[in-house]
Amino acid sequence: MGAAIVHGVAHAAEPQYRRIAGLVRARIAAGDLHPGERVPAIRALSNELGVGRHTIEEAYAELTAEGLLEARQGRGTFVAHPWASPAPAEPPWVSGHREPIVTHEAISARQILREALRPDRQPDQISFVLGAPAADLFPVGELQRALNATLREEGAGALGYEATEGYGPLRVAIARHLLGLGVPATPDELIITSGAQQAIDLTLRTLTSPGDYVVAESPTYLGILDACEANGVRLIGVPLDEEGMDPSRLAPLIARYRPRLLLTIPNSHNPTGITMSVPRRHALLELASAHQLPILEEDAYGELRYGGVPAPRLKALPSAAAIIYVSSFSKVMLPGLRLGYLLAPAPLHRRILFAKQASDRASGSLVQRAIYRCLESRRLRSYVQGVSRRCRERRDAMLLALETHLPAGARWTVPDGGVYLWVRLPEGVAASALYAAALARGVVVAPGGAYFPDGGGEPFIALNFAAQPPERIAEGIARLGAAVRAVLAGERII
Amino acid sequence: MGAAIVHGVAHAAEPQYRRIAGLVRARIAAGDLHPGERVPAIRALSNELGVGRHTIEEAYAELTAEGLLEARQGRGTFVAHPWASPAPAEPPWVSGHREPIVTHEAISARQILREALRPDRQPDQISFVLGAPAADLFPVGELQRALNATLREEGAGALGYEATEGYGPLRVAIARHLLGLGVPATPDELIITSGAQQAIDLTLRTLTSPGDYVVAESPTYLGILDACEANGVRLIGVPLDEEGMDPSRLAPLIARYRPRLLLTIPNSHNPTGITMSVPRRHALLELASAHQLPILEEDAYGELRYGGVPAPRLKALPSAAAIIYVSSFSKVMLPGLRLGYLLAPAPLHRRILFAKQASDRASGSLVQRAIYRCLESRRLRSYVQGVSRRCRERRDAMLLALETHLPAGARWTVPDGGVYLWVRLPEGVAASALYAAALARGVVVAPGGAYFPDGGGEPFIALNFAAQPPERIAEGIARLGAAVRAVLAGERII
Repeated sequence: MGAAIVHGVAHAAEPQYRRIAGLVRARIAAGDLHPGERVPAIRALSNELGVGRHTIEEAYAELTAEGLLEARQGRGTFVAHPWASPAPAEPPWVSGHREPIVTHEAISARQILREALRPDRQPDQISFVLGAPAADLFPVGELQRALNATLREEGAGALGYEATEGYGPLRVAIARHLLGLGVPATPDELIITSGAQQAIDLTLRTLTSPGDYVVAESPTYLGILDACEANGVRLIGVPLDEEGMDPSRLAPLIARYRPRLLLTIPNSHNPTGITMSVPRRHALLELASAHQLPILEEDAYGELRYGGVPAPRLKALPSAAAIIYVSSFSKVMLPGLRLGYLLAPAPLHRRILFAKQASDRASGSLVQRAIYRCLESRRLRSYVQGVSRRCRERRDAMLLALETHLPAGARWTVPDGGVYLWVRLPEGVAASALYAAALARGVVVAPGGAYFPDGGGEPFIALNFAAQPPERIAEGIARLGAAVRAVLAGERII
Repeated sequence: MGAAIVHGVAHAAEPQYRRIAGLVRARIAAGDLHPGERVPAIRALSNELGVGRHTIEEAYAELTAEGLLEARQGRGTFVAHPWASPAPAEPPWVSGHREPIVTHEAISARQILREALRPDRQPDQISFVLGAPAADLFPVGELQRALNATLREEGAGALGYEATEGYGPLRVAIARHLLGLGVPATPDELIITSGAQQAIDLTLRTLTSPGDYVVAESPTYLGILDACEANGVRLIGVPLDEEGMDPSRLAPLIARYRPRLLLTIPNSHNPTGITMSVPRRHALLELASAHQLPILEEDAYGELRYGGVPAPRLKALPSAAAIIYVSSFSKVMLPGLRLGYLLAPAPLHRRILFAKQASDRASGSLVQRAIYRCLESRRLRSYVQGVSRRCRERRDAMLLALETHLPAGARWTVPDGGVYLWVRLPEGVAASALYAAALARGVVVAPGGAYFPDGGGEPFIALNFAAQPPERIAEGIARLGAAVRAVLAGERII
C-alpha cells in the first residue's frame, strides 16, 4: 500500500486534494483497494506524497462524502462496501467471471463510473462517459417555443395531474411514429414514463419477484444493472459478439434458469454499439416464443442511425412472444425532460400501469404537452436527422483518432448508430489502470467492467463519441493514446 | 356577545387599522373573545370608535388572514377555533370500524375512485375528488417567467441529466425553507423526487421486503395504499380520531406485527383533514424510538394552513426515531410538474438514493431549475399565502353548504389546513349508494371505503373543498344534499 503517487501530471485548475481524491478513486476502481480494506493513514500518505496532512484529509473527506470511503472511530479510514444492498442470497461475486450466473452485487467499476457520470465534472476534463449527445445539439429554442405555446394556450390546464398512462395526444403521436417504424402500436398500449429507465424498472417490478432470474446481454446498459439490483433479481449475462446476443448461448441458460424476462438492446447496443443481425433476431424470437419468455426491447438509440438498412425492431417481426418495447426522448435529445415510453400488450399494460401509478402517479403534464407540440411541429424530424448527421461526424472523428493514436493490438467496434463504441485494449493494458492514467491526463473513460453483470471486463473500455465536438474528440483520444502507452510502459499512478 | 371594544390606545407610527387589529388580537389572547364568538359588526365598531368602516374592514381582514377570525357568509365575523374539533370528547367516529389487521387487496371503492380521479371528466360535473387546489390558483405566469429565464440564461445546460439527488441550488433552498419550519435539514440529506408519491415508494422499496408489515392511519392516502400494494407489503391500519392516529392503539400492533415502517400524515391528514395533537406527536415518537421503528412523515399539505398555531413537525421534535420527511410542490401548486422531495438521515439517504437511481435516474432538470427560480423570486411565499386564503374561503363555503344542505345525522371534520374534509353520512346512507346518486346529479365524491386499507368505510365520504370556487362548491353540495335525501328516500339508481 502507498507507493509513489504521481508523475508530474498536473492541471493548474484542479486543487491538489481533488487530484489525490481522483487517484484514490481510481485505485478503488482498479480493485487495488478492496471494499473493507484500510486506506493509508493520513500522516503516512502525507509524508509519502510530500503534501500537507490537511490536503489528504480533504481528499478523504470528499471520498467519504461520496460514500467511497468510511471512517471508523479510532480505527482509521476504510474503503466502503458498495451501495447498501441486502446480503446477496446466493453465490458471491465470482471475480473470474467464467460462470454465466451472476449476483446483483455492485462492483467497484460501477461505483467509479457513477462518480464519473455526475454532471458536476471539471470543465477542463474531456468526458467520454455520458449516455447522450452533447448539450450543443439540444433543440433548446424549439422546446422553449413549445413550452410557451403550451402555457399561453392551455394555461393552468397544462399543470394539473396527468392521467397515469400519459397525455392522450402524445400517445397518439407516438403510436403514429411507431407505425412509421413498422412497429404495430395503438395509443392504448402506450405508457409515458420518466425516461427509458423507469420503463425498465416498471417492467421488472411487474414481471419479477426478488430472487427470480432474468437474462440480458453481457455487457449491458448500466440502468439495466441498477434496475435488476433494485428489484432483487439475479441477472444472467449472455455473451454477445459482432452480431449481437448469441441465441445458441442463450438456449441452455433458459433451460437451466427459467428466467422471467429477457432484456435486450438490439439496435446500437449500449455500451458496445453493436446491432443485432436479422437472423439472430428471428432466432431470438423463436426461442422466446417457444419458452414463453417475455422480451423487453430497449430501443432508446434506435433513431440515431449512421447508414445501412435499419434492421426491423423485434416488435415489428411476427412472433408469439410478448414484447415490451421501450424507447425515450432522452437519448436523441433533451435527457433533462425525463420522458420515455413503453408499449406493452393489453394484459401486461394494465399491470405495468398500476406499477407506474404506485411509483410516481404520472409523468409531468407540462413537458408531455410541450414534447407533443415539438413532435407535431415537424421540425423535430429534421432536427433528429440533423443530430444523426452530427453524431455520425463525431463517430467518424473518433474512429480516425483511434486509428491515429491507439497502439497496435487495440480493436474497436464501428457502430451504425447510437452514441457508444467499445474498445478492446492491447494485451497488458487493464481498463482500471487505464482509467486512472487517463484521468490524470484529463480524460474520463468508462471501464468496461462497469457494464458486466458478472464482473470481469478488464480488457475493455466504452467511449461515447457523441458527447463532444470533433476537435475535443481528437484531443481526448490523443490524450487517451498517451495514457495507453504510459500503462504499457509500466507507469504507476499510486 | 359583541360588546365595546377599545379604550383609545394609539401609536403614532402605526396605521390605524393595525392598531385596531392589535387590540382585537389582545382581547382574543386575554380570553375576552372566545373561539366561536361573533366579533362586533363592522358598522357598529366603526361608529363606536369613530373611524371609517374601511379601517375596521382592513383590521378584520388582517386577523382573518392570520387565522384568528373567520367570516361566515351572511352571518358575520367570528373568532376562529384554534383546532378543528366541532364535537370534542366523544368516541372516535372518524374511522370507527373493526379489525386493525388488513390485506392490501384492492377494493371496489378504490377502483371507482381511480376512475373518478381521471382528468378527462365531463366538464359539467362538479368533482370533489382531486387531491390538489383548483387549476384557477396555479401560478402559471410565475412558472412561465422562470422557465424562460432558465432556458435564456442556462440554455442546453438546463436540459442534461441531473444528479440523482437533484439540482444542488434547489436542495439548498429547500433546506433553508425547512429550517424556517423548524425542521433541521441540510442539502445533503435531501433527494428531489417525482412528487411525494415517488418519495413514499422509494422509502418502501428501501426499507421493506415483500411480506413485511407496515403501519399507517386508517383511513389513509390512496398513494400510500398503492405503494404498499406495489411493494407487496402488508399494511396495518391504525384507527384515528379527532386528535389523529391513536398511539394506544398502535402499541399492541407494533408488539404483535413488528412493522418495518410507520407512515403518517400528521398535518391535515389526507383524506380526513385531521391534524395530530402535540401530545400524540410526542407519544408517537416515543413509541417509534423505543421500538426502533422508522417513520415516514408525509407533509404535502403542511403549507396550506387556515388558522391556529401550527403543530411542530415530527421531524422538528427531539427524538431518537429515524424520520424520513416527505413533502411536495404538487399539492400547494403545480401538481403537473411532479416535484417533491424527501429528507432522510445519512445511512438511509444513501440507500434511498440508489433506489431513485434505479427507478428513473433523476428527476427533470429543467423543472427543478424553474422551481428553484420560483422559490428564489420570493413571490412564491406570498403566492402560497394567497392560496391558503383562497382555500380557506373554499373550506368555509363548504362548511356553510354542508350545514345548509345535509340532513340531520351527518357530521364532518373542520380541517385546519389541507384540501380534504371527511363526512360521516346519516344512518342508512351508504357511501357507495350515495356515490351513484350524486353522480347521477353531476357531482363526484370519493367513497370513504377507497381509503381504508382493510375495506369498510361505508358510512364515509371525503370531499376536496379546495378544487372549486365557492359558487361551484355551494352548487355541488346542494346537489349532494339532494342525493343524500334521495338515498334516504330509497331511490334506486340501477
